[in-house]
Amino acid sequence: MGEVPRSHPRYHSLMGRKLLTEAAADGLLADSALIAHGRGEAFDYLLGEQTCPAARLAITEAAARLLDAPAPIISLNGNAVALAADDMIRCAAAIHCPIEVNIYYRTPERMEGLLTRLEERKIAVAEGPQPEMWHPDWEHMTGEWAESVEQVDILGGEPDGRIPGLEGPRADCCTDGILDSDIVLVPLEDGDRCEALVAMGKQVIVVDLNPMSRTAKTATVTIVDELMRCSKLLLKDLVDGSVEQSEKWDNEANLSASLAVMLDSLPQPE
Amino acid sequence: MGEVPRSHPRYHSLMGRKLLTEAAADGLLADSALIAHGRGEAFDYLLGEQTCPAARLAITEAAARLLDAPAPIISLNGNAVALAADDMIRCAAAIHCPIEVNIYYRTPERMEGLLTRLEERKIAVAEGPQPEMWHPDWEHMTGEWAESVEQVDILGGEPDGRIPGLEGPRADCCTDGILDSDIVLVPLEDGDRCEALVAMGKQVIVVDLNPMSRTAKTATVTIVDELMRCSKLLLKDLVDGSVEQSEKWDNEANLSASLAVMLDSLPQPE
Repeated sequence: MGEVPRSHPRYHSLMGRKLLTEAAADGLLADSALIAHGRGEAFDYLLGEQTCPAARLAITEAAARLLDAPAPIISLNGNAVALAADDMIRCAAAIHCPIEVNIYYRTPERMEGLLTRLEERKIAVAEGPQPEMWHPDWEHMTGEWAESVEQVDILGGEPDGRIPGLEGPRADCCTDGILDSDIVLVPLEDGDRCEALVAMGKQVIVVDLNPMSRTAKTATVTIVDELMRCSKLLLKDLVDGSVEQSEKWDNEANLSASLAVMLDSLPQPE
Repeated sequence: MGEVPRSHPRYHSLMGRKLLTEAAADGLLADSALIAHGRGEAFDYLLGEQTCPAARLAITEAAARLLDAPAPIISLNGNAVALAADDMIRCAAAIHCPIEVNIYYRTPERMEGLLTRLEERKIAVAEGPQPEMWHPDWEHMTGEWAESVEQVDILGGEPDGRIPGLEGPRADCCTDGILDSDIVLVPLEDGDRCEALVAMGKQVIVVDLNPMSRTAKTATVTIVDELMRCSKLLLKDLVDGSVEQSEKWDNEANLSASLAVMLDSLPQPE
């Protein structure tokens, strides 16, 4: 794909497609990763390619929980790295948590490629501008921007633990990372692993454009939104730091509200 | 991806994914082809991964029109070859028409790869079993199965014409093929080229899982169904030969009926 002009009405969606096909060419993605992205595109199309009010609430809920938890972690797969590496690193810097690469079809080459990509982006993000509203003196922020970014550990290269209930290499994880965490932000997770993480008693926050997927229904908080779009809003809430958890989060009701937006977007047959 | 067991409840969908990823590995597909397939998967999911009654009607309408037309042609792109080369060759044999490879991002390598793949499959299909109900004496069939298959010309390698209204290599086509045809069966077509073909006064039959796409809305007859599934039914109707065109085909109403199936499949919010 060639360059996407910023003025294109579907710039955002085309940019996502470009990032994904480039990552595939770089060998960072599994065979079926582009197909999964396409499924997401279809649901995003039904959402009107914008963050719906229910998703916005879920983002705030996710931010509040990530800020409150003693041991948060961000778990990324190939598509998440391709689409939102920079903002995910910024989010990790804001909550002072590590990032763990955890992919479904694990090969040494892809793991190495993803870890290298994240380390490179970490340097670029540390050198780049700090997020708006970032202030080193605020209580929930403990340092200067560059320092906070540099402190983000990138894990996953030497897994020494297993997620119970999963078979094969997809269960591999790090003791200092996913295994000992109490809340996992894991965009674009598959149903099996989402269930296994919930079964471990962890809070699981996912980003999934299909509100009917097993992942969406299993997670503690499901953000039904496109990852590039929602990660900017999540970062905003994390840096703001004043967000509060709802008294009783009803994930099912939130999924229904997202689904209602999709239903409304479909032309009603006569 | 490994082997897909036939007993798997989603065998059909997983097989499609396997065929696509293999074709991508063989260099037959454009970068964004897998993403397009994924979008289709999402809409097929909403259809319950089965041929809905409206699609069944559209298939019969398509068969009747293809059998009636003096100069039909089947135009295939990379995804269509990957998913349904054999059945498309069988359909071409049943209506005694050529197949033209016509791809959006044209490169000599992909054109060569697709033409070679089709020539190989043509030999395999000619040597394989004839479709059920095939009978060489029937009026609309003019020969033995193997002979009918061998007579299917595979065009596209040396385009000598242009589709008016399109720019660049995507306008290239064959005079003996798409240019002089009166009806084009073109599964998985993009909106621009569908519009250009309709503007030439041709009947255009498309297969598109998104009933709201520009292609779906522009075509003469839109089959809202998965290509592997509907090509078997189309072949059945073509070989049967007794199908009749409706007096007045209402494509828009047919699209609404498919959309209604998708709407009904979505859980209704309270």
